[in-house]
Amino acid sequence: MTVAARSGGMTTGQKINSLETLRNLCGNDLKKVNKLILNNMESEVDLIPQLAGHLISAGGKRLRPLLTLASARLCNYEGDKHIGLAAAVEFIHTATLLHDDVVDSSESRRGQETANAVWGNQASVLVGDFLFSRAFMLMVKSDSLKVLAILANASAVIAEGEVTQLTTANNISTSESTYLKVIKSKTAALFSAACRIGAVISDRPDKEENALDQYGLNLGIAFQLVDDFLDYNGLNNQLGKDVGDDFREGKITLPVILAFERGDTKEKLFWQRTLENLDQNDEDLEQAIHLLKKHNALNETQIRARSYTETARTALNQFPKSPYKSALEEVVNFCVERTY
Amino acid sequence: MTVAARSGGMTTGQKINSLETLRNLCGNDLKKVNKLILNNMESEVDLIPQLAGHLISAGGKRLRPLLTLASARLCNYEGDKHIGLAAAVEFIHTATLLHDDVVDSSESRRGQETANAVWGNQASVLVGDFLFSRAFMLMVKSDSLKVLAILANASAVIAEGEVTQLTTANNISTSESTYLKVIKSKTAALFSAACRIGAVISDRPDKEENALDQYGLNLGIAFQLVDDFLDYNGLNNQLGKDVGDDFREGKITLPVILAFERGDTKEKLFWQRTLENLDQNDEDLEQAIHLLKKHNALNETQIRARSYTETARTALNQFPKSPYKSALEEVVNFCVERTY
Repeated sequence: MTVAARSGGMTTGQKINSLETLRNLCGNDLKKVNKLILNNMESEVDLIPQLAGHLISAGGKRLRPLLTLASARLCNYEGDKHIGLAAAVEFIHTATLLHDDVVDSSESRRGQETANAVWGNQASVLVGDFLFSRAFMLMVKSDSLKVLAILANASAVIAEGEVTQLTTANNISTSESTYLKVIKSKTAALFSAACRIGAVISDRPDKEENALDQYGLNLGIAFQLVDDFLDYNGLNNQLGKDVGDDFREGKITLPVILAFERGDTKEKLFWQRTLENLDQNDEDLEQAIHLLKKHNALNETQIRARSYTETARTALNQFPKSPYKSALEEVVNFCVERTY
Repeated sequence: MTVAARSGGMTTGQKINSLETLRNLCGNDLKKVNKLILNNMESEVDLIPQLAGHLISAGGKRLRPLLTLASARLCNYEGDKHIGLAAAVEFIHTATLLHDDVVDSSESRRGQETANAVWGNQASVLVGDFLFSRAFMLMVKSDSLKVLAILANASAVIAEGEVTQLTTANNISTSESTYLKVIKSKTAALFSAACRIGAVISDRPDKEENALDQYGLNLGIAFQLVDDFLDYNGLNNQLGKDVGDDFREGKITLPVILAFERGDTKEKLFWQRTLENLDQNDEDLEQAIHLLKKHNALNETQIRARSYTETARTALNQFPKSPYKSALEEVVNFCVERTY
């Protein structure tokens, strides 16, 4: 990590994959989480671990469970409840991915076929439900009703965000504020809950709980902004999903909202034809990227992301210097500088 | 209720709709449950209460929440936690129905269009997730981790049953024992959990908890057996779903398992063509019902259902005579004698 990165500025020369410090620091805990994940997706119904394993072992970053582990350790937690909760957080995330892919009719994720493409939508819906239930079983073991309330609420908020997103799909007049509401709910709610529960199981005061909540929330917003940026600017082989997926599905993300606002009549018609009517031809993605760049929409999306990461970083000021704090600061860089 | 019915024998002259006693007895509680259901399906995302309300207000029997209410009262429960838990049980049930209808591509339920037929599969999946999350939020308010564990486990078991059912669809060689495992999981698990938690919140001894669990489990098995019977023998307008739905989808239920086992080569070919290959013509449903009757498969399905209801009834012996006990005994009659 460079000094510039630590102080908040982004430099082009800094280490890109800044999840490694966190992964190393939480290595032992993460091994236990992975073991618990494998144990808890077992079922005498063979299809369940097959389908769940397809997604869970497909090279996920384990970012959300890492946040739970690190948040707990940041709060000097010494017990073992963070292990089960980190696994629960990953299960909730996996369940939402399975249901998302059904909702989006996605065919590839993380560079391989989606579960719904292999086993069909029906199995994906049901295995998502199974993982979601198992997540709650894991949470019960934390013995904390407060943790259960936080994660149950986050799950409801995620679903609300996804439903709102459904109603904005193919609607190019979607406002920035609606977009922001969607990504806060569908992505950032789980980030913030994953962090907050680290303070809860450590019995830390409200201000630390809130600080971790704000860290996760703002990190999650930045993460999704970058995701939406990468969908027009990523490299297929690193991204693990196809550049242009959002475009092909007519998903309304910040880059296109900005470009549409700034476009002339002809350009507006282009966005309406391609994203609202899904009437697309081979050259349209290239033209879309051209328009996004012309109106500085991709850069601005990155700039917004960085502004949220600043807020995330500031929230950590609540905590004294520690290796976990530094690692969580680095995660901020990862989330905004990542190329996958 | 007739003496014959109370003692376990079924007579043709008895009152058919024996849910009424229970509904009347739990009337005040049920009103509170319905209010809580309406409040908790609220969301600023309009589509959520619209879609959820479509199903929840569509004349459901509220059988499962009634079981929770009555089980708690049977255990002399005096608090108000049973209200929230009954609502949670109904939410879990509704979420599974929403996901079921997506899985089955059903177009009608309870005599009206399914949510997925009106709003699409995507919204049904997500609103199901929302209700499931809200169910857990309601459960957290019960302040009982044991209740949460029971219902989270039941939810996982339901999903397992549904996945197993998926793997048996269109497989006419499905064994009776696999079929039984499916219906125990997908249907009876929630019945037994709904009853058991009544004893848990009342702090009753294990033997009462287990008795209510067994009552619910066996009632649930009987309920599903009758459901599968009615799919070939019901009246469309009362059933609220179409006679022959299972046949058209190639669902393998006990009546067809029995008729297939007992059929000659030509009949086996008929079942394979219609249920495995889904190669069906207009006269096939009639022919299927003819074969089911010829081999006594419908009668036997009813007889099995009655045997489970006997076990359910016996489980209640654990409890002294009371209006709630009598009402729960009557529910047994309802579940097996119902025509819808």
